[in-house]
Amino acid sequence: MNLFYQPDLPAGTLYLDEDESRHAIKVLRLEAGDLLDVTDGKGFLYKSRIVKADQKKCCFEVIGKIVQNKKNYSIHIAIAPTKNADRIEWFVEKAVELGVDQISFVLCQKSERKNINIERVKKVAISAMKQSQQSTLPILSPLLPFKHVINSKADQNFIAYVDQENPDHLKDKIIKSKSYLILIGPEGDFAEEELEFAFQNDFRRVSLGPNRLRTETAGLAACHILNLINQ
Amino acid sequence: MNLFYQPDLPAGTLYLDEDESRHAIKVLRLEAGDLLDVTDGKGFLYKSRIVKADQKKCCFEVIGKIVQNKKNYSIHIAIAPTKNADRIEWFVEKAVELGVDQISFVLCQKSERKNINIERVKKVAISAMKQSQQSTLPILSPLLPFKHVINSKADQNFIAYVDQENPDHLKDKIIKSKSYLILIGPEGDFAEEELEFAFQNDFRRVSLGPNRLRTETAGLAACHILNLINQ
Repeated sequence: MNLFYQPDLPAGTLYLDEDESRHAIKVLRLEAGDLLDVTDGKGFLYKSRIVKADQKKCCFEVIGKIVQNKKNYSIHIAIAPTKNADRIEWFVEKAVELGVDQISFVLCQKSERKNINIERVKKVAISAMKQSQQSTLPILSPLLPFKHVINSKADQNFIAYVDQENPDHLKDKIIKSKSYLILIGPEGDFAEEELEFAFQNDFRRVSLGPNRLRTETAGLAACHILNLINQ
Repeated sequence: MNLFYQPDLPAGTLYLDEDESRHAIKVLRLEAGDLLDVTDGKGFLYKSRIVKADQKKCCFEVIGKIVQNKKNYSIHIAIAPTKNADRIEWFVEKAVELGVDQISFVLCQKSERKNINIERVKKVAISAMKQSQQSTLPILSPLLPFKHVINSKADQNFIAYVDQENPDHLKDKIIKSKSYLILIGPEGDFAEEELEFAFQNDFRRVSLGPNRLRTETAGLAACHILNLINQ
């Protein structure tokens, strides 16, 4: 069953927006009477039926409402955008597939990219949510200063940073059923001042494994580890 | 330190091939006397020094040889190529970064893509090996028939397949320090006949988590889980 996204379900007649209508009617050739699943991205799945198969404004009626199982943990990844924009979009797609609750883009001193196309990233996230049959769209925060992100603390706060002191592996430091925030640095790594500020604010330094990982791979590995320990 | 790849280190004068020579001399502007790391992709890292900074044939001498730590487990991922070739190349890059010993491409009944550009995939793998500072290039097998892959069994053999019976999570079924083979199906999933053949050959059906994952994401998740349990 194809999943459609309609963020603001109006109180009266329900319809898909233009992009989703075109996909349903023109691409998938659905007709009046056909069933479809619609999500509002807020945790609800609406079992629905097409009332009017209009390519621009496909009307539907809801025949059942399913509340997606709520998890008892939440994952917030704060990541520096990569020099190559494709790599950070790829990270967003894969993190959404595996399960993530919030992604923030963080501006670091050594960031090679100092901007992010948040609308484009949102489209990637919506597509990944639909493809993986989920009903909750993660919160996507625009580019934020490093200190701002540090201040939005969770139950457990981590910073992926490896040095000679050989820090603990993330997987061994997770307490189940908590909210987590993990910081992933840019290609040029965190600045000394940023590290100090994070440590002062009780962020724990963790390793993600023995290999040197690219920024986007580190972000995904962190997301996967946090999910696995809680599954 | 940049890592260079030179698969067949000749017995006499040592030199980088043309691509690597150009990268070292033209792009990185290294000069005679500069140090560089060279790997043969077979587990050895050679601490080296440039003798002749030639853009086409950069000569170097070995001043030290390091044997990369051998793992006590091995991961073989057999995956159906995705319809979109970029996705499978992305999988190869990320699996190499996280650590993989063998990748086989498998031809399934419902495969949407029935070919693979193995030379291109090899380039991606070499680049990822160098970037993540590893010294072992995974074995890359060309497109193989499903039954052929089933016959190349490891200590533990898995097939990523979820149905109503809700199989076990891979992470709970791994015995540490073994060789592993896991099969990842195409977008259209495995055919009944393929599943039967795998079950008859003691492949255990496993889940990779609660979400529906794309082929390349499933391959990477499996690779990461097998590494994590062994780390």
